[in-house]
Order: sequence, then C-alpha cells, then structure tokens
Amino acid sequence: MNPAHPLHRRHLLAGGATALAAVGLGGLSRSATAQAASAVPASAGPAAPKPLPAYAAWKDTNSLIVHSSSTLETRRGAFGTSVITPSEQLYIRNNLPPPDASVLADRDAWQISIEGVGQSRTLTLAQLKTLGLDTVATVLQCSGNGRGFFPSKPSGTPWTVGAAGCVVWSGVPVRALVAALGGVNKGLAFMTGTGGEKLPEGVDPKTVVVERSLPLKAMDDAILAWEMNGAPLSLAHGGPLRLVVPGYQGVNNIKYVKRLAFTERESEARIMSHGYRITPPGTKADPSQASVLEMNVKSWINSPLPDSANLKAGFHQIHGVAFGGLSPVKRVEVSVDGGKTWQDARFVGPDLGRFAWRQFVLQARLPAGAHTLISRATDTAGNVQPQERVENLSGYSNNSWADHAVQVVIA
Amino acid sequence: MNPAHPLHRRHLLAGGATALAAVGLGGLSRSATAQAASAVPASAGPAAPKPLPAYAAWKDTNSLIVHSSSTLETRRGAFGTSVITPSEQLYIRNNLPPPDASVLADRDAWQISIEGVGQSRTLTLAQLKTLGLDTVATVLQCSGNGRGFFPSKPSGTPWTVGAAGCVVWSGVPVRALVAALGGVNKGLAFMTGTGGEKLPEGVDPKTVVVERSLPLKAMDDAILAWEMNGAPLSLAHGGPLRLVVPGYQGVNNIKYVKRLAFTERESEARIMSHGYRITPPGTKADPSQASVLEMNVKSWINSPLPDSANLKAGFHQIHGVAFGGLSPVKRVEVSVDGGKTWQDARFVGPDLGRFAWRQFVLQARLPAGAHTLISRATDTAGNVQPQERVENLSGYSNNSWADHAVQVVIA
Repeated sequence: MNPAHPLHRRHLLAGGATALAAVGLGGLSRSATAQAASAVPASAGPAAPKPLPAYAAWKDTNSLIVHSSSTLETRRGAFGTSVITPSEQLYIRNNLPPPDASVLADRDAWQISIEGVGQSRTLTLAQLKTLGLDTVATVLQCSGNGRGFFPSKPSGTPWTVGAAGCVVWSGVPVRALVAALGGVNKGLAFMTGTGGEKLPEGVDPKTVVVERSLPLKAMDDAILAWEMNGAPLSLAHGGPLRLVVPGYQGVNNIKYVKRLAFTERESEARIMSHGYRITPPGTKADPSQASVLEMNVKSWINSPLPDSANLKAGFHQIHGVAFGGLSPVKRVEVSVDGGKTWQDARFVGPDLGRFAWRQFVLQARLPAGAHTLISRATDTAGNVQPQERVENLSGYSNNSWADHAVQVVIA
Repeated sequence: MNPAHPLHRRHLLAGGATALAAVGLGGLSRSATAQAASAVPASAGPAAPKPLPAYAAWKDTNSLIVHSSSTLETRRGAFGTSVITPSEQLYIRNNLPPPDASVLADRDAWQISIEGVGQSRTLTLAQLKTLGLDTVATVLQCSGNGRGFFPSKPSGTPWTVGAAGCVVWSGVPVRALVAALGGVNKGLAFMTGTGGEKLPEGVDPKTVVVERSLPLKAMDDAILAWEMNGAPLSLAHGGPLRLVVPGYQGVNNIKYVKRLAFTERESEARIMSHGYRITPPGTKADPSQASVLEMNVKSWINSPLPDSANLKAGFHQIHGVAFGGLSPVKRVEVSVDGGKTWQDARFVGPDLGRFAWRQFVLQARLPAGAHTLISRATDTAGNVQPQERVENLSGYSNNSWADHAVQVVIA
C-alpha cells in the first residue's frame, strides 16, 4: 500500500488569491496555506467505516467505501488523474465469495474448458500463455454504478460513481485461442463464460452460478487475462484467470473463469435469464427484457467536489473521466451553471485505446457562491450522454448527466 | 501491496506439449502441470536479501533487489506486460536520503521558488494546482541502468535492467507556469532544478546538493508533478513535488523540487559539473565532458529468462520493452540465434505517448537446446540500438543489445 494514500487530498486546495491572473500579484501568505492544510480531507469516510475483507486486505482503505465484504467502492475523491486506476483503489463487486486463495498457489495449473470449437478441450493457464499475448486497457464498471442516484432506491448496492475503474489487462486473445482450436463451430451465436466460484450446497446450481452469455462478436476483443496493472491477477479481481470483454458491463467479465463455451443459446443460469435485465419499474425480471451488455456513454467530474477542502474563488481545473462502451468518447462538455451553458473540455493524458476512459479538464474561473458542475460526453458513434436516467427496477446503466452533477460552494 | 506478488511467476511455464500446433493433439496431463508448479519461482531472490528501507516499506519486496537503502532495483522477471510499472515495483535511486516524511503532512503547503522569469516568486503546491493540469507517461531510468554489464566494474550500483520503469505523472506543465509568471527572461539558456533534501552539515553545499541544469528546450515537455500512477506522489519517488522531464535520464527529474530557476549557466553543483559525465576510461570527470541528459534508444527482453521455470520446446511469446529518449521507438527486432538473424517483433498494448515505453512480442518456436535471445530497437529519428556499449568511467548510458542478451536453455 502506498503510504501516500492516508494523506490523500487531491482536490484543489486553493490557498490565498490563486487565480491565474493573480499569480504575479501580492505576497504569499504561508498562514493561508497552513489553514488549507487543517481542513478536513476531501474524501472523509463515514463515521464508522467497515473493515476491508480478508481477501482484499491489501487494498487502500482510505480510497474505498466498504459497503459489504463483496462490494467495495472507490471514493469519488480518490480518482486521480493518471488515467489508470491503481489496483489498491479499484472497486470490488463479487456475486459469490471468491474461491479459496489456494487457487493462486499454482497459477499455471488453473484449467479452463473450451467448448464449441473444432477441438474442444481443457487447457491449463500455462498452455494459454504459449498461444498469444495481448494487452488492453478497459473501463471495468459494475452495471449498478450510479444506482445510488435513483430516487426509487432499488435494492442492491447504492454505488454512486466508484464502481468503476480503468485498468490494464494482459492475456491471450480469445481469437488466437479459438483459431488454435479450429475455430467456432457453425451455428453458435453466443460466447458463454462460467466462473469457478464454489457454489453453495443444497441449491440448484443454475440459481447461483456466475455464467453469462454474450453475442459472438464480443470475442473479437476479448482476452483471457492473467495479469492486471502489471501484477499477476489477484484473487479479488478474478485471478488466476478472468474473461475480459472490453466495452461490456462488469458482470460479463467472468472471474476465475473455468469454462468458455460457444453456444447456440444464452445460458439458463439465473444471473443471465433474470438477473441483470433492464426491467421496467413495477414489473418482474424476464428473459425477454434487455440484458446488461455493452456500456453506454458516460462521464463524471472528480474534482472539485462538494467536500473539497478550502474552495476559493479563482481558477479551477475541473477534471473527470469519460468513456463509451464499444465506441470511445470523442467530446466532453462541461457546464458550471447547472446545464444552462456548456464549454468543451480538453482531453489530457495518454489515450489508452478505445476501451479505456479519457480524462478531461476544463479550466474555469469560479466566483464566490454555489455552482453546479456537470459533464456530458459524446461517443464516436454520436451517442450523447442523456440528461435523464432510464428508470428500471434494479437501477442499472445510469449515465444521466443530471444525476452525476456536483454542487460546490466557493467561499 | 498486492498479495499476488509473492506468487509471482510470469514466465512461460509451458506444461506438457504446448506448441501451438500441438494444442489439438493428445491428452492433457494434470501431473505435468503440477510438476511445472513445483519448479522454483522465476524471480528467486539472492540468498540473504536486504530488507526494504523504512521510507519504502510499502514496496513489493518480491519484485525488488535491495542494493542499499537508496538503491532498489526491479527484478527483470518482475516486469509484467501492462506497460505501466506499478509503484510497488518501481526502482528507487536517491542521491541523498529523502526529507523527513513530515513534508507530506501538508502537501499543498510545499513551496517552490521560481526564478529567472518575469515575476520570480515562491508558489505553494496549492497555487500550482490552479495553473494547469497535464498527465504524461514517461520512462524513468537511472543513467547507470546497465552498469552491471560493464566488464570494467565501474563504481556505483551494478544495475542490470531494473533501474527503469514506465509510470504516469500528473502536474502542472512548466510552460503554463512560466506563462503565468511572465515568461523566461531573455538570455537564459538552462532550466535548473534543485532538490529539497536536507544537506549534511559541515560540507560545502555545492558538493552534495542535487541540482541539475537542462537545456531550455527541456521545459517544453516538463511538468511539476504531484501525482504518480494515480496516487499522490510518495516520498520515495520525490513527493510532494517532483520535476519530471520526459525523455531525460532519471537524475534530471529532481525530487522534492524546491527551486526551478532559469539560468544563464549550468549549475556549479558537483552533481552537475563533475557527476553524471561521460568520462573516458582512465581519465577524470570534467565539466567539458558530455553530461547525462537525453536517454538513448534501448530495449531488452523480460521473458523468457534464464531462470524461467520449466522451459519446454515449442512456441514462446518472447516479450520485452523498448523506448527512445526524445524520439519514440518505431521498430523492434528480435534474434533467437545470438544476433545472426533478426525478425520484426510486434508492438502490443496501448501506446502511452512518445515518452513511454512500448512492449513488444515475438512468437517464436524454440526447440530443445540453448538459445541466445536479443532485442534491438530503432527510434523514429533513425537511431538504432548499438551492439556495443560506449565505455565510460562510471558506466552510464549502456544501451548495448549484446549486453542485454539473455541465454535460455530449453529442455
């Protein structure tokens, strides 16, 4: 854990008269900055934070909100401006408890069954490593990210923005794997991944197994990943092997993947047939409803925030993140007046590819008073982040710009 | 710290008959992979490793070789394929002990004196944050990286490849800062940064202060950085504020920077006038000799390595990293026969910009026997990584491809 985190305070502690135009003027008051220092950290936690679960004890507790042992959210104020989300800060959402840590004792012995190809068979991770290597940066986002903004208070974790991160994966491209095994059999329409969690006993496995089906085209960009952010994949994030499907919502990125099957039909597992569906309010989940698949265009501001310390009148670097699903973002607009007027923000930092998020910055002068700061992203397919969320029973896929607005009060 | 690290074994543990062509053939032997698992980790440390120093206690001990409390090297086998080097794995080289950790207690109060501009003055970090924001990925490399390959055994740390990493920085562009302060005064030719380390008493400060001068053009890409890899900059890496000069050797990236001065002449500090010079063997360091400034084009292979476990005949994904100084790499060739013949490797993973490294991969079939694996990079300016090092007294700037070759023995 980086010792810097406990002192985490990324926000604009604008000490003294710090407007750009004022830089050359007036003396520097050391006491003004000392005052800034005594302000509370921007990301102050709840009164009695829950401890990190054992399998995630290596996480940075100061960057996270622990909702439960299987749901950890990155604090909005903890997102930095380095594009990549450090592993210690990345959210966790597990549908089942992870397997025993002993599965990492011999990573290369992990087995995965490949089915629905010319030569279906079981391969070890060691064998996968001989077949190809690719590296891809992706936004990993729980489909319930933003659920906390639904006034209907859907059941499930009330994530705001922190069930998301941008990370780098390495593994074998599914395309290369499939090619080595003789290609996908004819007539199969789905790529189905199955998680290797231990299932609770005494219940129908279909009701609990983590198994998701994606349209066949998802294999084009998918990889079976054994590394994340430069380290062998941790148990918390699906190690030793995870199916990573760039552009698709988090649940489709199967952890501890033990089976990759090309199938004629979608999985009949409950998590596929009824879970993660866009269910109209007042109705019940049903396989005919749209499943949570590709992500939609989205952005939010990470600084300044309502709890940023010592907000002063003057120039601010308003920054945040923006991403699409299968189409990357091409534009982000920022409003400092609650959506009445908009200005184009600029992208800064490296572009890590179409599945990564971009960070945007708008330099704006904020006078004393209350300001509602909003961002709105547009992807290369022309999709514009909407003002309103799409109401649904479980609070999925919230990309409303209004919901993601922040109010700051400048002294 | 990521718990995955202690189980670190990135190398190709090729279990069973795993050549691409063989994938569809034969049964999978579980015992073969179990055998692979019992092999020693690829990055096994020295018999009695030194402990991490207190200021770097948060580092991943399994990824590092501790030469001394101020010199920590990343193990060659620890470099992954995620482009970015995780902070826990990044090397450390300090010319002086870091300041007391109390300098991080109030990061925004850190002060830096800006001199040689229209309105020279002292600014706080809080003020810098209002002036601009940029994010840049850079290779950070100690100029002594590769010294360990010099047969002359120059004094200094015998780094092989691990005094380097690729990391992401955020901060204010020096250009924006200088513009806000009225521009650089006329007739000044250097940008000089001074570190804020506590100097030992009783000695002439010039003989110990960390102060480096760079040609004025270096300011074009330079930033004053307060964040690295998504977290506030750690003390170990120069926090709360570091001068980052993309494309230049590590020593020029001044930690704890307390003064940024535009000057007519180079600093008279010993570390500038006599240190870090390309001094011909058998002579003494002299200010007339070339200083260690821009990095040169370089690459090396990180996998497979001589100590990779269980190397088997068949296909291997030979991978490594390549970078230039002010010009990025455009090509990497790999030889599996000690430099007799070369094949173009492909770049994989996101391109993080001209100052980052690229990772390259060549898929090659390696039969049983000994193989000498080599990589050779070419930058966009046409510079080709040379076969031989340039001999010099202190063992700087070694980019010899012959020195960076690895020998593997395939069973």
